[in-house]
Amino acid sequence: MKPHSPDLARRGLLAGSATALASVGLARVAQAQTAAAPAKPLPGYVAWKNPDHLIMHTGNTLETKRSAFGTSVITPAERLYVRNNLPAPDVAIVANRDAWAVAIEGVRQPRTLSVAELKTLGIETVAAVLQCSGNGRGYFAGKPSGTKWQVGAAGCVIWSGVPLRNVVAALGGLADGARFITGTGGEQLPAGLDPKDVIVERSVPIKALDDALLAWEMNGEPVPHAHGGPLRLIVPGYSGVNNIKYVKRLAFTAAETDAKIQRTGYRMSPPGTKGDPSFPAVWEMDVKSWINGPAPEAGPVKAGWVQIHGVAMGGTRALRRIDVSVDGGQTWKEARFVGPDLGRFAWRQFVLPVKLEPGQYVLASRAQDTQFNWQVEATPENAGGFLNSGWRVHALPITVV
Amino acid sequence: MKPHSPDLARRGLLAGSATALASVGLARVAQAQTAAAPAKPLPGYVAWKNPDHLIMHTGNTLETKRSAFGTSVITPAERLYVRNNLPAPDVAIVANRDAWAVAIEGVRQPRTLSVAELKTLGIETVAAVLQCSGNGRGYFAGKPSGTKWQVGAAGCVIWSGVPLRNVVAALGGLADGARFITGTGGEQLPAGLDPKDVIVERSVPIKALDDALLAWEMNGEPVPHAHGGPLRLIVPGYSGVNNIKYVKRLAFTAAETDAKIQRTGYRMSPPGTKGDPSFPAVWEMDVKSWINGPAPEAGPVKAGWVQIHGVAMGGTRALRRIDVSVDGGQTWKEARFVGPDLGRFAWRQFVLPVKLEPGQYVLASRAQDTQFNWQVEATPENAGGFLNSGWRVHALPITVV
Repeated sequence: MKPHSPDLARRGLLAGSATALASVGLARVAQAQTAAAPAKPLPGYVAWKNPDHLIMHTGNTLETKRSAFGTSVITPAERLYVRNNLPAPDVAIVANRDAWAVAIEGVRQPRTLSVAELKTLGIETVAAVLQCSGNGRGYFAGKPSGTKWQVGAAGCVIWSGVPLRNVVAALGGLADGARFITGTGGEQLPAGLDPKDVIVERSVPIKALDDALLAWEMNGEPVPHAHGGPLRLIVPGYSGVNNIKYVKRLAFTAAETDAKIQRTGYRMSPPGTKGDPSFPAVWEMDVKSWINGPAPEAGPVKAGWVQIHGVAMGGTRALRRIDVSVDGGQTWKEARFVGPDLGRFAWRQFVLPVKLEPGQYVLASRAQDTQFNWQVEATPENAGGFLNSGWRVHALPITVV
Repeated sequence: MKPHSPDLARRGLLAGSATALASVGLARVAQAQTAAAPAKPLPGYVAWKNPDHLIMHTGNTLETKRSAFGTSVITPAERLYVRNNLPAPDVAIVANRDAWAVAIEGVRQPRTLSVAELKTLGIETVAAVLQCSGNGRGYFAGKPSGTKWQVGAAGCVIWSGVPLRNVVAALGGLADGARFITGTGGEQLPAGLDPKDVIVERSVPIKALDDALLAWEMNGEPVPHAHGGPLRLIVPGYSGVNNIKYVKRLAFTAAETDAKIQRTGYRMSPPGTKGDPSFPAVWEMDVKSWINGPAPEAGPVKAGWVQIHGVAMGGTRALRRIDVSVDGGQTWKEARFVGPDLGRFAWRQFVLPVKLEPGQYVLASRAQDTQFNWQVEATPENAGGFLNSGWRVHALPITVV
């Protein structure tokens, strides 16, 4: 956490009304602004986010700072990363959220349903890690192309909507031969290109039907436009790209879509090769963890008792154990999970109190899931730089004074 | 939920920057504004909240609308109620959060600790219902004086900070004879009044030490100034007034404080009497639930399948069951808890799907805790209008067309 959090003053400024400014006092707001590191302005569609806690790689790729995760389990929308494969659709689509429609195909009675209709079919709520497939790419030695995400293309959020299985049941059940759930995003496609080359359309195995949601709510508010509102397909345990924003078509299909983003993109292909359907698709996430604090952004750490904390996730499985090292993985101590357990798709916060003398330390963590799978020491390099969960490259050097 | 949620457009407006306005399009923003009901502007210290989801009783008493709770378990800060016994201290106190200091007394080695020091002593995270002692006062037939809260002086939030027991251990343990935890708020006292008559200072039984936190984080962000940041005493399971904002002194005492707010205020005294220490203090919350949707604010409900949903809490105990009625409590059906269980101090979302013909219905809910205590049908009237948890007065009439 930043010692001089400018959150409130910033919010006061954002409010921008005469009332707000008069109340907090212009002088004090100016003071708080000076105290904070100057942050690049964010693009308009995410101007409501807090730039102090984000790393802006590009206008479509915003990363949460390691120091901004806190210890409250959930990631507030203002701090959540953004990664768009295409520019977001016009914001007018959230003017009447209940009118947004999704075409359901590959069921016995295919039809188009509005959000208002979906809301009559059921309610479920799930806490899940949302993590970009390329989170950790910046730590691959092979320097794969793409955004050099560190740890912050991830967050833990609470989604609420209708279970996809309820929708299927209401439409007579699956058609014969359905083996994949194929979702299509509502982004406008750039003109002059083959739609197949640019459309955001992904297929996941039909087994994901057990947990998938069509979500209209995130962390207690309508899903923000920047995060896929009015309606987003949520596939808990699957990496970000599989969670289709502005979902406008949902088909239960016999084969994977032949959209480029599925056929050749997001494949676990060896370095130097092109992706193709013979390589595994980027789907389920792995067991992974990392340290969030003390964060190096906050400067040197004071000697004495230090609460080392971070987050750990099991992908699609619950966790059974988390270890922490202060010597880069030479020795380990079991840490303690803290706070509520939000279920197997969420991450858990962990903490280990240690007494540190002045010196240099390398903080690392490794998680184990309930099937005794340890987080790997190193994820093999792959052409796209996907799913990096190796604990060694995620280690964090700190200076104690 | 409001069918035409203006959240995003409103946030775009709040951002107020040329970038934001250019991006979303001025015309569309204006359109979204027109669609939303005009909301009274909020006072400056809470100008960052969303007025569309709040009922402003006074500048110091803001209630969350029933329709604004959603189904994601947690209540976002932008929608959380506010109730201040005194005006909040100057916002300058959050310019350097780590420097805020709290005096700890009634331990073997009393001393003052800064937030920076507290952060070295431990980390714990708890999800808890924060509920004003007077929530539901508006439903008492005796019309007790005070804000006429309906259901919305409550929320479920995630707090993170240091367990109070760690602080006690670090200071040598409790002094002899400690029977209460007495917290003092950092508000500036109005001049010309006896401090005892106005100071926000509350005592709770020492058994609360098991679960109490000194919290610096709420829902993943530093505790907002309006909610008690930089540091708030959290006593999970105890009503709002016991959770001291801007806590500047924490004493383990042999007796309850003689501050008016403890001695005569917040007592369960019979109607027509004045509070005094012979009546029970307003401390632990009761088992309670209410329906949030379909909310009457959204207009008549369409006939057919309806997802009746709401929240249920056990006070200090977990829940075992929740029932829903559509005929004002003549008949009941068991509903289903949905979403993650955030622990015994949190509330749980519940849902019951029912098929409704056109007509008038009265929706009600009643919860049962793990010790088989049912939510009461009616809470006895009391002079202060505190802790109203009766299911009958919380029932919700709806029209189905």
